[in-house]
Amino acid sequence: MAEFADPRVLRFLLYDVLAADRLVERARFAGQERAIYDQVLDTAERLAASHFANHNRAADLAEPRLENGKVVVIPEVEAALDAFADAGFLAAHHDAALGGAQLPWTVVQTAFAFFQAANIATAAYPFLTIAAGNLIARFGSDEQRATFLPSMLDGRWFGTMCLSEPGAGSSLGDIRTTATPAPDGTWRLKGTKQWISGGEHQLSENIIHLVLARTEGAPPGVKGLSLFIVPRFRLGAGGARGPSNDVALISLLHKMGYRGTTSTILAFGEHDDCVAQLIGERHQGLVLMFQMMNEARIGVGLGAAMLGHAGYRYSLGYAKERRQGRPIAAKDPTQPQIPIIEHADVRRMLLAQKALSEGGIALCLYAARLVDDAATEPDPIRRRDAGLLLDLITPVCKAWPSIHGPASNDLAIQILGGYGYTRDYPVEQYYRDNRLNPIHEGTNGIQALDLVGRKLSADAGHGMRLLGARIGDTVDEARQSSEFAPLADKLAGEWGRLVALAKRIDAEITAGKREAVLADASLYLEAFGHVMVAWLWLLQALRAGAAPGLDDDFRRGTLQACRYFFAYELPKVAAWCDTVGRFEGIALHAKPAWF
Amino acid sequence: MAEFADPRVLRFLLYDVLAADRLVERARFAGQERAIYDQVLDTAERLAASHFANHNRAADLAEPRLENGKVVVIPEVEAALDAFADAGFLAAHHDAALGGAQLPWTVVQTAFAFFQAANIATAAYPFLTIAAGNLIARFGSDEQRATFLPSMLDGRWFGTMCLSEPGAGSSLGDIRTTATPAPDGTWRLKGTKQWISGGEHQLSENIIHLVLARTEGAPPGVKGLSLFIVPRFRLGAGGARGPSNDVALISLLHKMGYRGTTSTILAFGEHDDCVAQLIGERHQGLVLMFQMMNEARIGVGLGAAMLGHAGYRYSLGYAKERRQGRPIAAKDPTQPQIPIIEHADVRRMLLAQKALSEGGIALCLYAARLVDDAATEPDPIRRRDAGLLLDLITPVCKAWPSIHGPASNDLAIQILGGYGYTRDYPVEQYYRDNRLNPIHEGTNGIQALDLVGRKLSADAGHGMRLLGARIGDTVDEARQSSEFAPLADKLAGEWGRLVALAKRIDAEITAGKREAVLADASLYLEAFGHVMVAWLWLLQALRAGAAPGLDDDFRRGTLQACRYFFAYELPKVAAWCDTVGRFEGIALHAKPAWF
Repeated sequence: MAEFADPRVLRFLLYDVLAADRLVERARFAGQERAIYDQVLDTAERLAASHFANHNRAADLAEPRLENGKVVVIPEVEAALDAFADAGFLAAHHDAALGGAQLPWTVVQTAFAFFQAANIATAAYPFLTIAAGNLIARFGSDEQRATFLPSMLDGRWFGTMCLSEPGAGSSLGDIRTTATPAPDGTWRLKGTKQWISGGEHQLSENIIHLVLARTEGAPPGVKGLSLFIVPRFRLGAGGARGPSNDVALISLLHKMGYRGTTSTILAFGEHDDCVAQLIGERHQGLVLMFQMMNEARIGVGLGAAMLGHAGYRYSLGYAKERRQGRPIAAKDPTQPQIPIIEHADVRRMLLAQKALSEGGIALCLYAARLVDDAATEPDPIRRRDAGLLLDLITPVCKAWPSIHGPASNDLAIQILGGYGYTRDYPVEQYYRDNRLNPIHEGTNGIQALDLVGRKLSADAGHGMRLLGARIGDTVDEARQSSEFAPLADKLAGEWGRLVALAKRIDAEITAGKREAVLADASLYLEAFGHVMVAWLWLLQALRAGAAPGLDDDFRRGTLQACRYFFAYELPKVAAWCDTVGRFEGIALHAKPAWF
Repeated sequence: MAEFADPRVLRFLLYDVLAADRLVERARFAGQERAIYDQVLDTAERLAASHFANHNRAADLAEPRLENGKVVVIPEVEAALDAFADAGFLAAHHDAALGGAQLPWTVVQTAFAFFQAANIATAAYPFLTIAAGNLIARFGSDEQRATFLPSMLDGRWFGTMCLSEPGAGSSLGDIRTTATPAPDGTWRLKGTKQWISGGEHQLSENIIHLVLARTEGAPPGVKGLSLFIVPRFRLGAGGARGPSNDVALISLLHKMGYRGTTSTILAFGEHDDCVAQLIGERHQGLVLMFQMMNEARIGVGLGAAMLGHAGYRYSLGYAKERRQGRPIAAKDPTQPQIPIIEHADVRRMLLAQKALSEGGIALCLYAARLVDDAATEPDPIRRRDAGLLLDLITPVCKAWPSIHGPASNDLAIQILGGYGYTRDYPVEQYYRDNRLNPIHEGTNGIQALDLVGRKLSADAGHGMRLLGARIGDTVDEARQSSEFAPLADKLAGEWGRLVALAKRIDAEITAGKREAVLADASLYLEAFGHVMVAWLWLLQALRAGAAPGLDDDFRRGTLQACRYFFAYELPKVAAWCDTVGRFEGIALHAKPAWF
């Protein structure tokens, strides 16, 4: 078993909880079978170990650097990305017509989770390339699909997303990059983009930037943004690499984590010679980009959870090996020391990590399953419902694991003690890497505003009713068992608390108190995530009891993590909701001069 | 005002809340006056800015390194430590007879807080030297005091504490370093010590190690430990630096934070020629060392709180400058962007940082005041009570700020967004530096065991009654005011909850369920810290209302932080106590194989 990820957890979620093997009944996945999915996961686990985990620390220590005007990364990165592409992972979910394997997104994401746990920084290159490819596949013209996708699916070209600018980070409406039409129907871009991961490197023949820019005469704000395809190098005959497309590296950025990923500031069109293609309609740029961002948000959540999981795995192995201290009841210093996993406080920190990180994985894979359902569920009502539910929970899938994944990594460090913060052990790197996730792809504060200010009341609250129904199904099922009935009652109570508070929030907003309510949106999001994860833990506990052939230790561990979450985490929901429900505006009314 | 620390906060706590200026009425501080204390604080603030903050990042980027067998640190560190010593800070609290200024510990710690906020890694050298000096001053023989203290008080020699070994971290009873008597009454030490901060460098003429070791025939466990003074270089005539004392650097350790502090593994007596002096009685080593550790624990808590404060100050300045987005109620994109401090979610994160970091500072300075009271309070009963109270809260003073200081730094990063995790801004370093504090000087888990397993019931619970009485005084005072009465009621309720749970814990322990109870000790400690900090915030709010000449904005900020703590933080106490009070043993009963 790989040190960085437990395949039992991922398989249990994929098959026993999310029933992904049942997807083969759908037209798109016809002819597939569980054995194929198993093979995909095996390959992912193997490659992640041999080609990603192998240089996780090396890439952290040797950041990308400029040498003679070129960005140099350590050679293991290119080897990893070649192996990833050669195994078909860039194309795995795409249409067979495009050369893809047409695998379910749930399966592909589960496989990708191994790579995220093994080396989040190297995994960022295919992460962005896949997201950019999906956007072109969905919104590009036939010509654009034919021009760009084959090389992005086989790994010759990589992709990026270029949204932020120095003056426009969270506020995308302030993007100033301009797009000017050229007589041949293409556009010329001019502007500066910042925080562009994978923005410049020698790892691929070309880099396909997806760039938000403003056309002349466009309306102000986000409604005036359009999306453009901008290759780093112009395309020669047959896609051969042509001359530079006037995209220049201004500088590399140096972060506390994800150090293996090049992070750049890029200048587009410094010489007025950056050729771009419009993708989709003019002024629809943000709508298109949100396709990519929503997918990326779930992926960020999954990455955060997997980093949490990797830290859990490492600290678990350490706790079984490291001997220190003696049982509280038998402190005889002449007796040998015991492995620290025997100390209850260490076990508490292990259970917490398991509950938080696997809870986050379950949340994000559940979202991935909704992606599949929204695309392939035969019944149109269920298909629509899956999309609504996905819209509702996407901000939670991004934010919740990116809060609790780092919290989990914090506990891994604590278990290792002094070794934990030493750079000879991997857990401090997980902690640093994971600190980016609450910020990139939309800060958690933005996610909370999205959830509370938009999603709760979207479609007249239909998403909330759908989620309530699914939670209700689990509650009903759990109430059949004397073991789980008390947990079912608790879950029902906390869900009821969330729904009641959502109604009060809606009333406040209707009464014009939007700003005061949104001031505490982050707390509501945390409470919401906790209830969802409690639900998914109860679901896991039920399925673990029923799954055939499940290892008994694994089953009991699942039950114990569920109990832990209900006993240690769920009580916090009342505290958060209590604070939100006061609508006191304590933060809102604190004047800047008071600080 | 220094960017890294707000002197208004420290002065308000020192004078208005802790009434340190009243200490001049005591014999030891006779002839002193507030103007002197003000001058000390001014000097500290100035030196911290000019000599410590100036190289905080530089020392992080250029870790101590080995060159030709010598440990080299950047030159700014030596300049800083010279300035610190020249200003008299190493001797400030010592007896006048020793050349000290006999200042109150509360004042000295408040001054030291500036240095911790400015550069925690460079501040670690005097931190350890002062602690080692205090131990020698208290327990050394007259000859030892005369031999070592003058040079440690004027900065010619630095000090360390050497407890941990590779096989003995948290479990000090497993220390294997041996001490063998020599005919001349000295001892020969042999063993390996690890995690020794300041263990080797060229910053001082000599390094005075305080080393725990086991004498021949000593009982096993901690009861067989003795404490030794081991100079790095033998002392020649008049204290001149003699030959090496067979203390060798095995290796430097590389950490995620505090990088400017040399961290070492040391070999004592590789050539059986390491000369040591016993300090205090044989087998009393741990008792003596605890004097140093308890002081260091409060200092670690203060450092964690000050790092939290430094991050708060930086993110506050950033939030006032950085323009991004528009008011929720007026999102017209043609209008200029607003400073992000105008966004309620950002203000919430600023208020949280203020409440958590200043709460931690208040907690630790309150403990410093108890140190003074335990030493100089004229009334013997009050003097004893101060000591008992100090014993009770010491683990909380170490652990609580080292949980919530890092949590505060996490929010500072969040406010800066992408810039926050970039190494061009200081907040990511504060976050990394602060991650050490929950571990060193006794992990937070050990602090929790100390609080719940020992301190709660020490002296038949007298410490708890004393704390209850002090909290009760504040509750009574607050109930006189309609503004504060609701907060007083809440505080009284939560304190009552803690006391009731402490009684149930005591009963469980008496019933032989010690292990199950201690499994959740960390949660009880968090709850305990929250109630204490809520109390200190209410006290601050009361004093801010009454303090003459206090800036009105500062006063209102204090009140708002108090309100924030009661509304956002205090509700968590019920959740923690609820979990602890189940005594379910969920972590305890999770078998290693289940993970």
